[in-house]
Amino acid sequence: MNRGKFIVVEGLEGAGKSTAIAQISAYLQSQGIEFITTREPGGTPLAEQMRAIVKSETDEPLTTEAELLLMYAARAQLVENVIKPALEKGVWVIGDRHDLSSLAYQGGGRQLPETLLMPIRNAVLQGFEPDLTLLMDIDPKIGLQRAANRGELDRIERMELAFFERTRAVYLTHAKINPSIKIIDAGLSLEQVQGQISSVLTSWFNDVQ
Amino acid sequence: MNRGKFIVVEGLEGAGKSTAIAQISAYLQSQGIEFITTREPGGTPLAEQMRAIVKSETDEPLTTEAELLLMYAARAQLVENVIKPALEKGVWVIGDRHDLSSLAYQGGGRQLPETLLMPIRNAVLQGFEPDLTLLMDIDPKIGLQRAANRGELDRIERMELAFFERTRAVYLTHAKINPSIKIIDAGLSLEQVQGQISSVLTSWFNDVQ
Repeated sequence: MNRGKFIVVEGLEGAGKSTAIAQISAYLQSQGIEFITTREPGGTPLAEQMRAIVKSETDEPLTTEAELLLMYAARAQLVENVIKPALEKGVWVIGDRHDLSSLAYQGGGRQLPETLLMPIRNAVLQGFEPDLTLLMDIDPKIGLQRAANRGELDRIERMELAFFERTRAVYLTHAKINPSIKIIDAGLSLEQVQGQISSVLTSWFNDVQ
Repeated sequence: MNRGKFIVVEGLEGAGKSTAIAQISAYLQSQGIEFITTREPGGTPLAEQMRAIVKSETDEPLTTEAELLLMYAARAQLVENVIKPALEKGVWVIGDRHDLSSLAYQGGGRQLPETLLMPIRNAVLQGFEPDLTLLMDIDPKIGLQRAANRGELDRIERMELAFFERTRAVYLTHAKINPSIKIIDAGLSLEQVQGQISSVLTSWFNDVQ
């Protein structure tokens, strides 16, 4: 039996991650591939409790360091207890966010130093990484407008524009140096975006089969 | 107004930390010093939620890395939102465990490497440390027996003996190199232990006043 593949969808708020995940799911289904979807932070009972802390709206400020540590604690739980066991059984995994989000949001947005981020991610992931990442790239001005139209923004989504510009810059830097990250121009029309996703997915799929 | 002092009580299960804290509390009260007590992990609403995850008895195994990250996330919350603000107002803090517990339990007991521990603790604490630590030192065989007599042991307290022997060794190593850590022989009779605490406390208190 072949090991499953791990496909991750990344991007800023309002970039269309959910639509992309729906499209990938439909594609894998059409190919007869068994898969599960995960979201980060969260995806296990304990990791969902950590997510609730990160997302909670309390009077107590969550420190930047605590936020980072919770993100990786949740990721450790999800990778060890859900993602790796699925892949080992030959089940594919579609991830709504993964490690690149922490590098972009906590490293870029929050400006936490690499001297802190790297030892944590190396200890938690030990070289584990997605087989394919679709980076839904969008100008944060447009993305935030879309997210705002959808309803109330959460604690992180209410950060100022510069935060998201720094986050996007880190996303794009990684995409330049890591060939498994494919940039999708998420600022185009839905049809054009879906066309790009379909083309990336098909050509990658044919390579790995 | 003088800055408050931070006194921490450390030690293995069954070493008599609670009794020591009661004695220190009584002493500070007799000196007319305003103080609060904290426990770790926990001590703020969000940190208590993290404590609940660490202590929870679920079918989902908590990874060693996630446990460490949760401990430091909780510590970040407690230090920033409770301990530092108290000290700045001139209020003293008596801590039931603090950073030395992570170095001893996660570093010693769980054998997590310093290359992971140190960047995290440095980022969370940024040089912040207790003014005085009382290390209640006890042979784990005796301590665990005492803790077991008290009632059910929790997830961490049910670890094998070698885990606690490694934890104790790290405690003692730090006590050797850090003069603010005072070793109390907690294997003696209650009267003798209280005599040692009283003597350490009085002589330290006279020095810092």
